[in-house]
Amino acid sequence: MRIAELSRRSGVAVPTIKFYLREGILPPGERTSPNQARYDDSHVRRLRLVRAMIELGGLSVAAVHDILATVDSPTDDLDKLMGTVSKGLTQAPEEVDEAALDEVVALIEDMGWTCTRDHPAARSLAMVYTAAREIDHPQLIAGMRRYAEACEVIARTDLDYVANFTGIDRVLEGVVVGTVLGDSALAALRKLAQTAESHRRYGPDDPVE
Amino acid sequence: MRIAELSRRSGVAVPTIKFYLREGILPPGERTSPNQARYDDSHVRRLRLVRAMIELGGLSVAAVHDILATVDSPTDDLDKLMGTVSKGLTQAPEEVDEAALDEVVALIEDMGWTCTRDHPAARSLAMVYTAAREIDHPQLIAGMRRYAEACEVIARTDLDYVANFTGIDRVLEGVVVGTVLGDSALAALRKLAQTAESHRRYGPDDPVE
Repeated sequence: MRIAELSRRSGVAVPTIKFYLREGILPPGERTSPNQARYDDSHVRRLRLVRAMIELGGLSVAAVHDILATVDSPTDDLDKLMGTVSKGLTQAPEEVDEAALDEVVALIEDMGWTCTRDHPAARSLAMVYTAAREIDHPQLIAGMRRYAEACEVIARTDLDYVANFTGIDRVLEGVVVGTVLGDSALAALRKLAQTAESHRRYGPDDPVE
Repeated sequence: MRIAELSRRSGVAVPTIKFYLREGILPPGERTSPNQARYDDSHVRRLRLVRAMIELGGLSVAAVHDILATVDSPTDDLDKLMGTVSKGLTQAPEEVDEAALDEVVALIEDMGWTCTRDHPAARSLAMVYTAAREIDHPQLIAGMRRYAEACEVIARTDLDYVANFTGIDRVLEGVVVGTVLGDSALAALRKLAQTAESHRRYGPDDPVE
């Protein structure tokens, strides 16, 4: 198909597609003349994936570039690749308070998790600890163990979901989609559950329509 | 204190503070001369809260404005106010597929939750359903019930956390902080738990240091 049809089928505007081609986020089509190229279904799917990461996941173009480079590189070490992609999806802060990171590491050990203190998500969590104290809300940290237990249930669901796929590229695409769309889904479900729990505790006795 | 000290103590640059004052996000200080004003600890705490919402929560200035307007308005209907704040923290899509929204409503009813289909989080979740199908990953939706169960545990933790506070403004500040910082914490914990679970399933037998 031509770029116009690719745009229509993916929901991504032509100038944006050209930008993605220049940035190497979208592989080039098959050149049919000096000014034209032909695209196929793999381009449609890739564009939809990029759109999901940017629009729903709020990722930067640079982050999307790095993740796709990992997805596209051939390998057979599933554990390592999944780690790389998962880390690529985390925006790790450059500077963290080491004492807060110590607390995060203690939680990780307490949970029996195999993650090092260099994991971007550990650093990201340390930032949350620091921020919670700075704005005088240290109580948030006290609930972290129960959050961690809930996240174990979520992670098992995630890995079961990834096990649906065969072929390293589909598996990794599953990790990216599951992480990005999953974070959006979980944030939404958390708010719905909060509304329900708040109503149960503080709301009127009659059920709300 | 003068604006320079407010900047130093809050970690927010002076031009940004002036912008927040113009936008009504930060209440004005006590004017001491035509060109100077005095600020107090409440300004420091408000600025740290705004910084957390924008930098960690990724909220827009407009969203922060709306949330703070709710926090600052006096009321005693806790359930209603918490709902308003929680909804303000959700960026609801304008257009959603009604069939996807039907599925979300079925899940909400299945969980026994008291939320209507107009809840921004319900609309946001419907968007995720649509996106998952568009990029050919409908399997993600199959795990939503287990996600919802994990979110019930999280929501109970959240409401216990909010119960730490007395006074409507502190309670609502707790909801904002808990939601924004909590989403960041949960995203990080989810990735740590995924890394641990992936290692358990696919990693080498020896423990990772």
